[in-house]
Amino acid sequence: MTSRDGYCWTKKDGLKAGVPTIGLINPPTNVTDENVNYDVVVIGAGYCGLTAARNAALEGLRVLLLEGRDRIGGRSWSTNLDGYPYEMGGTWVHWGQSNTWREMMRYEMEKDVEESADFSRGYNQFELNSPAVTASMSHEEEDELLISATKKFANVDGVFGRKVIPLPHDTFRTEEAKALDRLSAKDRIDQIAAELTPKELAVLEPFILLFSGSTLEKTSFHEYMHWWAMCGYRYEGCLDMLITWKFRRGQSSFAIRFFEEAVATKRFSYAFNSAVKLVKDTGAGVEITVASGKKYRAARAISAIPLNVLREVTWDPPLPKGKVAAASVGNVNQTIKVHAEISDKDLRSWTGITWPHNELIYAIGDGTTPAGNTHVVCFGGDHKHMHPEENIEKTKRAVENMFLPKDKKPEIERLVFHNWTKDEFAKGAWFFSPPGLLADHLDDMRARHGNVVFANSDWALGWRSFIDGAIEEGTRAALEVRKELDPFNQSKSSL
Amino acid sequence: MTSRDGYCWTKKDGLKAGVPTIGLINPPTNVTDENVNYDVVVIGAGYCGLTAARNAALEGLRVLLLEGRDRIGGRSWSTNLDGYPYEMGGTWVHWGQSNTWREMMRYEMEKDVEESADFSRGYNQFELNSPAVTASMSHEEEDELLISATKKFANVDGVFGRKVIPLPHDTFRTEEAKALDRLSAKDRIDQIAAELTPKELAVLEPFILLFSGSTLEKTSFHEYMHWWAMCGYRYEGCLDMLITWKFRRGQSSFAIRFFEEAVATKRFSYAFNSAVKLVKDTGAGVEITVASGKKYRAARAISAIPLNVLREVTWDPPLPKGKVAAASVGNVNQTIKVHAEISDKDLRSWTGITWPHNELIYAIGDGTTPAGNTHVVCFGGDHKHMHPEENIEKTKRAVENMFLPKDKKPEIERLVFHNWTKDEFAKGAWFFSPPGLLADHLDDMRARHGNVVFANSDWALGWRSFIDGAIEEGTRAALEVRKELDPFNQSKSSL
Repeated sequence: MTSRDGYCWTKKDGLKAGVPTIGLINPPTNVTDENVNYDVVVIGAGYCGLTAARNAALEGLRVLLLEGRDRIGGRSWSTNLDGYPYEMGGTWVHWGQSNTWREMMRYEMEKDVEESADFSRGYNQFELNSPAVTASMSHEEEDELLISATKKFANVDGVFGRKVIPLPHDTFRTEEAKALDRLSAKDRIDQIAAELTPKELAVLEPFILLFSGSTLEKTSFHEYMHWWAMCGYRYEGCLDMLITWKFRRGQSSFAIRFFEEAVATKRFSYAFNSAVKLVKDTGAGVEITVASGKKYRAARAISAIPLNVLREVTWDPPLPKGKVAAASVGNVNQTIKVHAEISDKDLRSWTGITWPHNELIYAIGDGTTPAGNTHVVCFGGDHKHMHPEENIEKTKRAVENMFLPKDKKPEIERLVFHNWTKDEFAKGAWFFSPPGLLADHLDDMRARHGNVVFANSDWALGWRSFIDGAIEEGTRAALEVRKELDPFNQSKSSL
Repeated sequence: MTSRDGYCWTKKDGLKAGVPTIGLINPPTNVTDENVNYDVVVIGAGYCGLTAARNAALEGLRVLLLEGRDRIGGRSWSTNLDGYPYEMGGTWVHWGQSNTWREMMRYEMEKDVEESADFSRGYNQFELNSPAVTASMSHEEEDELLISATKKFANVDGVFGRKVIPLPHDTFRTEEAKALDRLSAKDRIDQIAAELTPKELAVLEPFILLFSGSTLEKTSFHEYMHWWAMCGYRYEGCLDMLITWKFRRGQSSFAIRFFEEAVATKRFSYAFNSAVKLVKDTGAGVEITVASGKKYRAARAISAIPLNVLREVTWDPPLPKGKVAAASVGNVNQTIKVHAEISDKDLRSWTGITWPHNELIYAIGDGTTPAGNTHVVCFGGDHKHMHPEENIEKTKRAVENMFLPKDKKPEIERLVFHNWTKDEFAKGAWFFSPPGLLADHLDDMRARHGNVVFANSDWALGWRSFIDGAIEEGTRAALEVRKELDPFNQSKSSL
């Protein structure tokens, strides 16, 4: 079934909007009676909303899930294009991501993963393409370079951040940690500029932007260090946890399990294609109006709406000042992720950085397609931002530019992507904060507002920005609401 | 409230059996009607049983929890001795332990931890006390020595085990991994003997036994490598994940949350002091007889009984051959864990290895008690095994022998311990396998038997042996039973 979301370009068919995914829900709703008073309405069917809805329904609440899209997964979903799962957003998982891995084990999916990298085949090289340095090297040399550069970048305390952020879930446990949130990645690079070799600088800058999808000036150094701490304070940990293991059958094969389990409770209603426009807190409960004008009522709402979209909804009463301020600052991540199917088997073990002159800056061989071609995934962001569907020839050139010039240009058979910047329900990719946002507003973002609990990976404590943070937040929100409504207390319950 | 479990010796009062813990449940039962037919009986109130019982109750099943002890927590519980939480068994937690950390976040306890090590005070040294080498060194030197030794030990494939065990949750994913389970730690040491310096050998052997609590001959090399892989294939990861963060108020402050949440469902009954003697599968359900002769009935049972205790229960029909064979081989871990309160503040940053001539072999400064003394925790195992309560003078000497001779002997104010070897409900400490047990019987241990699901950290896939593995297994078992009984299907449900 084909979602409205995403784009696919092929030589044969040109550019087409919409790609097939098992994450599409059809029919889009199972609501038959619109006058039900639910226990809780969950807004948003990404991992956070799915977790909240599933948990609340499992533990005895009557749940309605509302989603503007035609599919589940939010900023993480996979295609099923000629049998191949291109990951349109959040992709990689690891057992160090506690909430994700717990759910994967619960669904017995912990073995259902495969490694992105396969450094055993064909053109087994890292290419660095930068005005300062052009080089082709082994992956061991690539790692050495990045280990050295990232160590210098992170070493604010002589122990690579361990003293400043000893417990990453308590990100501002030390005063020093808070001070780091006043620095941008650019500020930090300036501090250590004298220590960095040109090669180190040429790989460090794009590596940082791979985290933030922004510019160096708009990237909080603290938030980079938070990721770094979560990854064990080391580059090798970043590789392990951020870019190694992915679902053999795609993210949507995981997300659908949450949805199906919620359905099995028989306490779970849903309506897709139902963008929420107005959330009214009546004191006794909430009344939610969607784009079609339909209204839904519940005792509580769990808003899983991302930070950058909060202001697109009308809130009555209005959102508190701190939350509005946080939303005005916003998530700065405008990652462009472009998948390219290239008819060159030998690129399977290739990786590359092209910086700073290209729209795409970092790419890796990510798989082999059923047609036997190499699947390469490329990343760009707010640095030289582009909208890949607006000029597909430019997008192809940006992919081609990832490779050092050779006799033969790479032959692009297919491009697949989701434009997260234009996406009305995301307005950006995974969360990344500019300097100051977290120090000033993390608590504001997490605060509830009357009968509405705000849950989103954007303000998770652990793997903030990740699928894991989404599940963390959905878990938190469902428990908070379930404890309040206490479906186990028969005298109190509306069940 | 004082449990029957554990021992405390003080200068003033001598040796006393039983120590206070918030994990004690009083009154020990809330069962009023003994003729209830439950959905599921859970046997064992360690983390596995607590998780299974809680989840099943939360998701709509009527649950009875049976436990032989007077307290929750199984092989993980903490005292409340003069306001100080001595950890009698499983202690340390980390966000790399997915199930544990997920639960900690769910209970908003992720900040409720503190670090064991404090290498900033007093006598900040590592002492190595071995006939081959006697040395006092900095903790940086200690780490270097152990990093070097453990790398040599683990490097079976040129990449420290990453190729052989790429995905530790799928422990036998490669043929090579299975072959490692035919080797003992001793066999592996023999392979690399020529590469090890005397110092390296003197720290490596006790480090391995800190994992297994056994002898080198009875320690599976594969299982060591499984731990190693879970810890990120490195010594520093072992430190981070195995021995750094502990609950400020002790493990029982965590376990009690599971119990209290189960109670809040109002679908949860429990009976402590109720050792299970007979589990009879009637085909239609199960009938469980406890030591008092009382019988309880349910549709299903979840046995959270440890491997070494399985044969103490009568099973009708008898357990399958594979499970009996696994139980006959058994968990080889006979760790002795002795806490010593020592009136020397300066020992807070001390660590030591005494090997191989002492009953206790590894110790660290673990905290400062309310009286201002240093809390040192010491580990021994099946190598020179002792029963610490049988000869308290010998136990004191074994603690004293952990320190290199100085002008003044350490002044022991208090000893606290649990004799896990004599414990009838554990018959050993956390699970560790001898060569062959996992390769031959991991699937047998995990298999269900009619209406009985077997769940225990002893055969978890991830953090096997850990609290995390217990929660993993309890989660799996509860979901399996809940899906079968389907309380959401009103026509089918007995509710």
